[in-house]
Amino acid sequence: MGPSVFEHPLLGGHFRDPDMAAILTPERQMMHMLNFEAAWLRACGKVGLFEMLQAEEAASAIERATVDFADIGLGMAVDGVPIPSLVKQLKAITSVDEVHRGATSQDVVDTAMVLALKEATNLIVSRLTEASTLLGELDEHFGRAPLMGRTRMQAATEITVSDRLAAWHLPLLEHLARLQQVRSRVERVQIGGAAGDRKALGDKGDAVVADVACALGLLPTQKAWHAMRDGIAEYASLLSLVTGTLGKIGQDVALMAQQGIDEIGLSDGGSSSAMPHKQNPVSAELLVTLARFNAVQVSAMHHAMLHEQERSGASWTLEWMVLPQMLMATGRSLSVAIKLFQNVTRIGWTG
Amino acid sequence: MGPSVFEHPLLGGHFRDPDMAAILTPERQMMHMLNFEAAWLRACGKVGLFEMLQAEEAASAIERATVDFADIGLGMAVDGVPIPSLVKQLKAITSVDEVHRGATSQDVVDTAMVLALKEATNLIVSRLTEASTLLGELDEHFGRAPLMGRTRMQAATEITVSDRLAAWHLPLLEHLARLQQVRSRVERVQIGGAAGDRKALGDKGDAVVADVACALGLLPTQKAWHAMRDGIAEYASLLSLVTGTLGKIGQDVALMAQQGIDEIGLSDGGSSSAMPHKQNPVSAELLVTLARFNAVQVSAMHHAMLHEQERSGASWTLEWMVLPQMLMATGRSLSVAIKLFQNVTRIGWTG
Amino acid sequence: MGPSVFEHPLLGGHFRDPDMAAILTPERQMMHMLNFEAAWLRACGKVGLFEMLQAEEAASAIERATVDFADIGLGMAVDGVPIPSLVKQLKAITSVDEVHRGATSQDVVDTAMVLALKEATNLIVSRLTEASTLLGELDEHFGRAPLMGRTRMQAATEITVSDRLAAWHLPLLEHLARLQQVRSRVERVQIGGAAGDRKALGDKGDAVVADVACALGLLPTQKAWHAMRDGIAEYASLLSLVTGTLGKIGQDVALMAQQGIDEIGLSDGGSSSAMPHKQNPVSAELLVTLARFNAVQVSAMHHAMLHEQERSGASWTLEWMVLPQMLMATGRSLSVAIKLFQNVTRIGWTG
Amino acid sequence: MGPSVFEHPLLGGHFRDPDMAAILTPERQMMHMLNFEAAWLRACGKVGLFEMLQAEEAASAIERATVDFADIGLGMAVDGVPIPSLVKQLKAITSVDEVHRGATSQDVVDTAMVLALKEATNLIVSRLTEASTLLGELDEHFGRAPLMGRTRMQAATEITVSDRLAAWHLPLLEHLARLQQVRSRVERVQIGGAAGDRKALGDKGDAVVADVACALGLLPTQKAWHAMRDGIAEYASLLSLVTGTLGKIGQDVALMAQQGIDEIGLSDGGSSSAMPHKQNPVSAELLVTLARFNAVQVSAMHHAMLHEQERSGASWTLEWMVLPQMLMATGRSLSVAIKLFQNVTRIGWTG
Repeated sequence: MGPSVFEHPLLGGHFRDPDMAAILTPERQMMHMLNFEAAWLRACGKVGLFEMLQAEEAASAIERATVDFADIGLGMAVDGVPIPSLVKQLKAITSVDEVHRGATSQDVVDTAMVLALKEATNLIVSRLTEASTLLGELDEHFGRAPLMGRTRMQAATEITVSDRLAAWHLPLLEHLARLQQVRSRVERVQIGGAAGDRKALGDKGDAVVADVACALGLLPTQKAWHAMRDGIAEYASLLSLVTGTLGKIGQDVALMAQQGIDEIGLSDGGSSSAMPHKQNPVSAELLVTLARFNAVQVSAMHHAMLHEQERSGASWTLEWMVLPQMLMATGRSLSVAIKLFQNVTRIGWTG
Repeated sequence: MGPSVFEHPLLGGHFRDPDMAAILTPERQMMHMLNFEAAWLRACGKVGLFEMLQAEEAASAIERATVDFADIGLGMAVDGVPIPSLVKQLKAITSVDEVHRGATSQDVVDTAMVLALKEATNLIVSRLTEASTLLGELDEHFGRAPLMGRTRMQAATEITVSDRLAAWHLPLLEHLARLQQVRSRVERVQIGGAAGDRKALGDKGDAVVADVACALGLLPTQKAWHAMRDGIAEYASLLSLVTGTLGKIGQDVALMAQQGIDEIGLSDGGSSSAMPHKQNPVSAELLVTLARFNAVQVSAMHHAMLHEQERSGASWTLEWMVLPQMLMATGRSLSVAIKLFQNVTRIGWTG
Repeated sequence: MGPSVFEHPLLGGHFRDPDMAAILTPERQMMHMLNFEAAWLRACGKVGLFEMLQAEEAASAIERATVDFADIGLGMAVDGVPIPSLVKQLKAITSVDEVHRGATSQDVVDTAMVLALKEATNLIVSRLTEASTLLGELDEHFGRAPLMGRTRMQAATEITVSDRLAAWHLPLLEHLARLQQVRSRVERVQIGGAAGDRKALGDKGDAVVADVACALGLLPTQKAWHAMRDGIAEYASLLSLVTGTLGKIGQDVALMAQQGIDEIGLSDGGSSSAMPHKQNPVSAELLVTLARFNAVQVSAMHHAMLHEQERSGASWTLEWMVLPQMLMATGRSLSVAIKLFQNVTRIGWTG
Repeated sequence: MGPSVFEHPLLGGHFRDPDMAAILTPERQMMHMLNFEAAWLRACGKVGLFEMLQAEEAASAIERATVDFADIGLGMAVDGVPIPSLVKQLKAITSVDEVHRGATSQDVVDTAMVLALKEATNLIVSRLTEASTLLGELDEHFGRAPLMGRTRMQAATEITVSDRLAAWHLPLLEHLARLQQVRSRVERVQIGGAAGDRKALGDKGDAVVADVACALGLLPTQKAWHAMRDGIAEYASLLSLVTGTLGKIGQDVALMAQQGIDEIGLSDGGSSSAMPHKQNPVSAELLVTLARFNAVQVSAMHHAMLHEQERSGASWTLEWMVLPQMLMATGRSLSVAIKLFQNVTRIGWTG
């Protein structure tokens, strides 16, 4: 046990996904936050809400800033958001009081989150593609081999390995299509200001939003989505669809690997402390676990849509607790599936 | 209490949605099943798997068939699917032994389900459109009125009614876009046969699938999706996104209707058995309840993706228990929201 | 599909539990509600809050009352609770205006629910006892037979059938102990009045509560538990623990029944519309489905604990949607398990 | 964002609970595991399964052992359990090949988990007691003050602060009673060996189990509970009941703190980066978040009951992902509630 299996020194080896973890490090999140604050200052400079050269100077200083995490941790304990402390630090660093002016905590935190989601989506897409390629290769090697088709956990009629692999493979292609569609609903800059109405920007709102979005590689938004979490909840649902498909594969593999069934050969079984002879289908089991995990977590992301008024501290915080774990579980599930596919030495009957 | 609030004689008035209920009646499901069996016979006739005229005769008889539901209920208790008993009845009615030949229970049940989902989506789309129109009208009437922006349940800065309405309105438009995108992943005919490989159709598989799909107004499929439930789980996720947005609206309305806040006027409060003077924001509360309900149920639909091998009786049955309820909750949530919007007499500050 | 599988004419055979359904019928709930209103009047009569003879007369009339369900259904649509309409009817029937005076909707609905839970617990206890007896008999017949112990879905070392049966049997005994402990936290009369403080009863509160509780066979309460739902959520959690154990058994049975494993013989396999030769372990699958169903629903009951202030319409309504279904799933799971145990013809290796 | 909010350098201040975290550190888990292996050797020595003096020597060496965590992390990646690598290390340290003989990974990991749960329960009990004392004090100070009773989020009739506090306070006392009852179902040693049947212990099973249990301060068990997870799932359910009650309190406080309602005074509001004047009820919101979080997680623990055969890698691993987080959330929720109660400066109407 331990608060987070993904970072656990003893258990981590089973759950860790270094690539996804790198996307979610506090340091990287801070970088995104600083990039937001810098882009914000520059955009305000451009539209004349702030003196342009001074804005550029402060923005560059912010991009180079070394942030005191401990101080932010303390502020978080009081404010329930990390930004008030961060802004204090940045004002001190730049000796510019206009830092963050017109923006609010949620603009910074949500935009940083979206920048992380964009990177996560790229990772997921590349792994889905790799997994799909590997399944194509398994099909080439073993596809024509006969396999007992099993329905309701009973032998039905003979099928081919290709038939079973299709149920593993086709959904991965659908997931790629879904991710493509959801990007435009997720990779959007968050800018609303105090109460979400961009009031502080006066008639310069659209210009500032467009400029910040462009600087950060995100889409501009007509309105802040502070209290519209449908894009995030949809994204979380897709993560669980991905792990759901991989969980189905893992469950099939665990069933195929049973003695007496012997429909698959694997080269990576885990060992047992009591039975050195055993080869446990550890990767297959983990795919099932991660699928069940996300199938539970997705519920929290749907509950988090009930966001009171202009901003809900309670619902927003619930997203922080769950979404990163869903990303870790999804990343890990994909890396495990890829490893599993690479370790398949046989599917179906030989003989 | 009572097994199903949606049909409960005492509670039903609160939860019932006659339009969605009509889509999900057993009679209508049976009609879809019979249409499948008829289309199946005709398609087999066309490709020569069965004598064409006899196929047409039997198909018409099936379309006109009066089915003995009680007998199917008994069969269900034994088989865990309604089709074996149905097929027995249809063979007796048509005295044609080829009825259903080459198809399997899941082909019939899933295709019937998909035909219901298509009708449900049409209903949801029309209600989302109506709700969106009503919000547009509320914005016209009250949009310019001032309103206290509230973040983290505290007064923040003054906004306008339009600002709050935008957070209610924009997600509805996104949901319309999502439903459009998911249709092609859901409205697909299910044809696989015994073990999902269409083996019984020989080289006529594609022709039969195309013909049945066309006859039923669905898309053809390259493979059966017996064990690929991602489309269904995605659809369920969208249902919960819809109720999530409406739940956020309901929660806002309940907060706005508090004495001491008084940001909204409603003409439909419910009465209390102990305090006749009270006007309870019953519709607003119900939107919250239905959102929480779907946010829980969506988890089951993601778990149901872990479908063993070629067909899982356990996972498939879980869908039957949950998806229809999610449809009822979504339909009811939309009808309640529409009623609620129509009953708004004031938003924001007057005078 | 269909809103409620438990009452579905086609699917019901698979899910129906006539005994649990009888406990949850609207008619029986109404009987509980009428018994509460009658006991209430009598108790108020005894303590002098109302003329005693008139109270007795009205109480008897209420116990014999024929209630117009349709009228209540209509009232429910407006009020979000069935009681205002019911009270109107009872006042007309008794021509006594003091009917329900000092009580509130939640007192009646919650007390009626608790009376149903008491009956449900009795049913569950008797079935757990029967299931436990049957497992004891299976142990007598087959316990000494050898069985391959399987860990992580791999053959481990040989155990006996007794060893596996113990993991099925012992938790049932724990569940009986848990149900005994939870009864005193659930079988409590609900009396609070308008805002839960029993104000209308003046110094007669304790006497009225004690008298109503005694009349209904429930425990008295020091305070109304309108907004304290921990007992109900705990009860729902126990229901899911029961189905969880039975789901583990069902999953084991489905795994044991696989061709190539053949560790169990069953006499009740379901048939397939495509493969008449198949014997599907339908009961075992259903146990898994019902366990997954309750494992999802239990989440809703925990969310429903977040009950605003003195009474939450939203959270309370969520309980109505979920708890009865959990009862139906638990009752059905137990009846299926009993049937399954009775149909076991062999466990472990023969010969 | 970040994989674990409980340990996050930026967000941790909001979520961290140092006392609960100390119970769950990998170092402390390792200490429990080593204590198990030491107690195991000594018990085997006592019953003559192993030379007694050598057993004592090896046991002491194990208790003093410095374990290479990195090596275990690597082994975990292969085996899906940390024990095979640990045992290798301990055999090297003690040059005793009998280390762990007759036990299995799950015996060590589950027993270590249960030792952590025992410590966690002690912490939870002491905090529940403190919270209850503080509520008693609030009742003394403010209990007689009038308060508007609110039902369905509408003003109902005037109650007293005592009435509302009772709904916060009484469930905490129930939770203390529940925890007392569940202890004997959770604080049980796990000993089963390879396939759970204690075969390797021959007729010495009961003696070894009793001795190890006694040495570790746990209850002995008649059978291993490798595949009987009802005690753990029940415990997790109680954790969510605790956070559910505290979440209800937090939600009430957030509603009471609204401008226009002003029913409570707090001295610990969090600040806003955009509105320095604001005092956000951060602690109250966090109680809601943690309640929703656990209400979701509890579902996973019920799913994890579906444990295949003698040991399920998939279900067991799911517990590791969820239970520690539920403990952290519960510990934090209690510490936040205690802080919140201490910061209440007023409840109800003054003046």
